[in-house]
Amino acid sequence: MKVYSKRIVLPKTSELDIIDITDRVQMEVKESGVKEGLVNVFVVGTTGATTIMEYEPGLVNDIKRTLESLVPKGADYDHHQKWQDGNGHSHIRSVLLGPSIVVPVTSSTLYLGAWQKIVYIELDNRPRERALKISVLGE
Amino acid sequence: MKVYSKRIVLPKTSELDIIDITDRVQMEVKESGVKEGLVNVFVVGTTGATTIMEYEPGLVNDIKRTLESLVPKGADYDHHQKWQDGNGHSHIRSVLLGPSIVVPVTSSTLYLGAWQKIVYIELDNRPRERALKISVLGE
Amino acid sequence: MKVYSKRIVLPKTSELDIIDITDRVQMEVKESGVKEGLVNVFVVGTTGATTIMEYEPGLVNDIKRTLESLVPKGADYDHHQKWQDGNGHSHIRSVLLGPSIVVPVTSSTLYLGAWQKIVYIELDNRPRERALKISVLGE
Repeated sequence: MKVYSKRIVLPKTSELDIIDITDRVQMEVKESGVKEGLVNVFVVGTTGATTIMEYEPGLVNDIKRTLESLVPKGADYDHHQKWQDGNGHSHIRSVLLGPSIVVPVTSSTLYLGAWQKIVYIELDNRPRERALKISVLGE
Repeated sequence: MKVYSKRIVLPKTSELDIIDITDRVQMEVKESGVKEGLVNVFVVGTTGATTIMEYEPGLVNDIKRTLESLVPKGADYDHHQKWQDGNGHSHIRSVLLGPSIVVPVTSSTLYLGAWQKIVYIELDNRPRERALKISVLGE
Repeated sequence: MKVYSKRIVLPKTSELDIIDITDRVQMEVKESGVKEGLVNVFVVGTTGATTIMEYEPGLVNDIKRTLESLVPKGADYDHHQKWQDGNGHSHIRSVLLGPSIVVPVTSSTLYLGAWQKIVYIELDNRPRERALKISVLGE
């Protein structure tokens, strides 16, 4: 049984960047030596999210618009009184989407459908170098 | 320590079918031989979701109406320009609900509350034979 | 390889209480003896959720208002015909937020960002003694 983990840092991101990290996660799965098991991708920070989606520009736009519709950026959030950084919407969107995703690993490979990509969604309103923790468990 | 996984295929589903898969997941937990650990249920595809809910017809209706209210089917999504299959809403709903759920296993049994059922939610607008990957880790 | 799990019960909660359980989860991680791995926190029940957020009163208010905006409490849900307990909104909010969160463990410590706290969100409209299952896997 193996446990492997790696902290990775993404190139500086901007608000609502949606970044395909599938190849990077696959690289860490190979590096782990785990053939069968699970991988977890976890955002270190309260204003980002990980999820799985078809990665094409139209859908990327649709996700952005949906987030704006459900949790508008311009609204007056109480969180703004704490830090005056105007990113209340970022935190709430992160809670809705979630910071952590679990994906099966089979034959040292992410077990994904043809169109499934693992993505990081930047939700903060300031550019950031974002850290992710990739953990692989299995044998 | 054991790692077990199984791909299962559901009978053909229609849009917004919500299917109780608890017994099937429990069957795979037994088959795995894992007494204590975790099970992950993962949808292979970008237009479905797994979650946990009380499984009764009224709540099933309520979930369907909420999805329609938050991410309307009739809207004009950019994703439609990619494949012309009109399922932009399906992809976005899948991102909101998530394709992956983790449940504890104790004494070879899913550790669920009295009313908790593991469900698959079909979000695509075309009938599909949907694959799920069930992974069990533990000892 | 170790597998550890513990059922904990929270002091009686009220609707939309958001409770920081980070220290308690950390305590169980220490108790487990796992140095490197993953921890899962799972709500035993269909009207609660776990997630990760910055824990400050303004954001707590914002989350409450967002839930009320997306899934209003006063609406007429079909679920109310089943039990007459008026908590249809609680169930739907639980499906949106999810009952289960996975967090990395490194050097016997939760691998969290500076502001990340693991929280339990009570979504039911009646006071409850809520059970959570904390599972730790790793070595």
